[in-house]
Amino acid sequence: MEEPLSLSKLLNTFAQIGGKRILIHGGGRTATQVAAAMGIETHMINGRRVTDEDMLRIVTMVYGGLVNKTIVAHLNTLGIRALGLTGADLSVIRSHRRPPLPDGTDYGLVGDVDSVDGSALSTLLEADIVPVVAPLTLGNGGQLLNTNADTIAASVAMGMAADYEVTLVYCFEKKGVLLNADDDDSVIPHIDSQSYEQLKADGIVSGGMLPKLDNSFSALRAGVKQVVITRADQIADLSQSTTIVL
Amino acid sequence: MEEPLSLSKLLNTFAQIGGKRILIHGGGRTATQVAAAMGIETHMINGRRVTDEDMLRIVTMVYGGLVNKTIVAHLNTLGIRALGLTGADLSVIRSHRRPPLPDGTDYGLVGDVDSVDGSALSTLLEADIVPVVAPLTLGNGGQLLNTNADTIAASVAMGMAADYEVTLVYCFEKKGVLLNADDDDSVIPHIDSQSYEQLKADGIVSGGMLPKLDNSFSALRAGVKQVVITRADQIADLSQSTTIVL
Repeated sequence: MEEPLSLSKLLNTFAQIGGKRILIHGGGRTATQVAAAMGIETHMINGRRVTDEDMLRIVTMVYGGLVNKTIVAHLNTLGIRALGLTGADLSVIRSHRRPPLPDGTDYGLVGDVDSVDGSALSTLLEADIVPVVAPLTLGNGGQLLNTNADTIAASVAMGMAADYEVTLVYCFEKKGVLLNADDDDSVIPHIDSQSYEQLKADGIVSGGMLPKLDNSFSALRAGVKQVVITRADQIADLSQSTTIVL
Repeated sequence: MEEPLSLSKLLNTFAQIGGKRILIHGGGRTATQVAAAMGIETHMINGRRVTDEDMLRIVTMVYGGLVNKTIVAHLNTLGIRALGLTGADLSVIRSHRRPPLPDGTDYGLVGDVDSVDGSALSTLLEADIVPVVAPLTLGNGGQLLNTNADTIAASVAMGMAADYEVTLVYCFEKKGVLLNADDDDSVIPHIDSQSYEQLKADGIVSGGMLPKLDNSFSALRAGVKQVVITRADQIADLSQSTTIVL
């Protein structure tokens, strides 16, 4: 989503989807570029950004400012009443700082979500507003915390599930979960908890896809109706994607 | 407002003021620092920032992200339902790019305000939300434009005047408009259009204060009830400030 052309395509398609919508975005590549331009090195552990004070300033600028407002401006021009938010706005997503792991690994100013204020988001949705959420949350004492966008998406979906029939759509590089990692067209159309166990046993689903699917099932168990894993260019027609249900 | 301690004091005081409130902020000093850290030089003409593509990215990051979310996080922690906005969010402030001046001066991606959507802001205010507005506006074709914060404050005040009794409060370095520039305590308590003419004729008000006061009278003529010029530490008690009425 961070290339201007892909982003523009995605937003044009997003604008055409009916129903109430919340868009959650990331911005990691841009954050890494801005950090480099400021002479600040990016450290990742297991694909997650280590966030010290300097890096928090950068992700606050990039996620909350540059990426969020670029999306918001584009959507408003398409006639969508988009409103940019971080978890700090209206205290919508509260979190606590992740404690260092037993092995001493410390991600720094990174937040694990405690709660999503579904009613605040609902007020916006019912006013025909499309919330656009940057992956920053509100920790104790007003501390902004960097939080994984996929996790925020799942948390927000769960937070809305009490009042809405929620579909959580993840946009990745692939069209869906692949039966054969080397064949981009081998999308598995449906996964449920039973076939998921089989896919794991057969070693078809492994590695980085496991936490994504585990999160998806957590969301489903918390009341989300379905989770779809797709590619950005497919969001208007999800029929070629992977749909996950309990 | 850009020093953490002054900002913190101001926000604590702001949180105590009653009534419906909109906070408009700047962030120029921080933008200049971030630009410098990225090896980008800041050019000012008559105190206004020249905004090319690179500088627009920086002010979008700094105003829309860093400064806005720092304020929002702080206010939410004080129990204020603060929501950060730029003019692009909900298309709240539309603008057009300022054309180059006859002498060739071109401020670049700078917007002059065309309209403020008072009803969108009113919806937020009536939901007990405190909008926190960053000085960026929505130009044609979804172009974000850099816009002077004082001008945005006046435009927003005028945009709300049809539905509310509006006081526009400007926070500057001085306690108010001074009778004697060398005496910080020589605040002129009241100025109206008649005494303003006299102050100008006597040369007491001159230089940079003239456009500020001219803007204030424009706001008053557009229905704003009063304009107060004060220092940040005085916003809870405006009695030592300069109040301007028609």
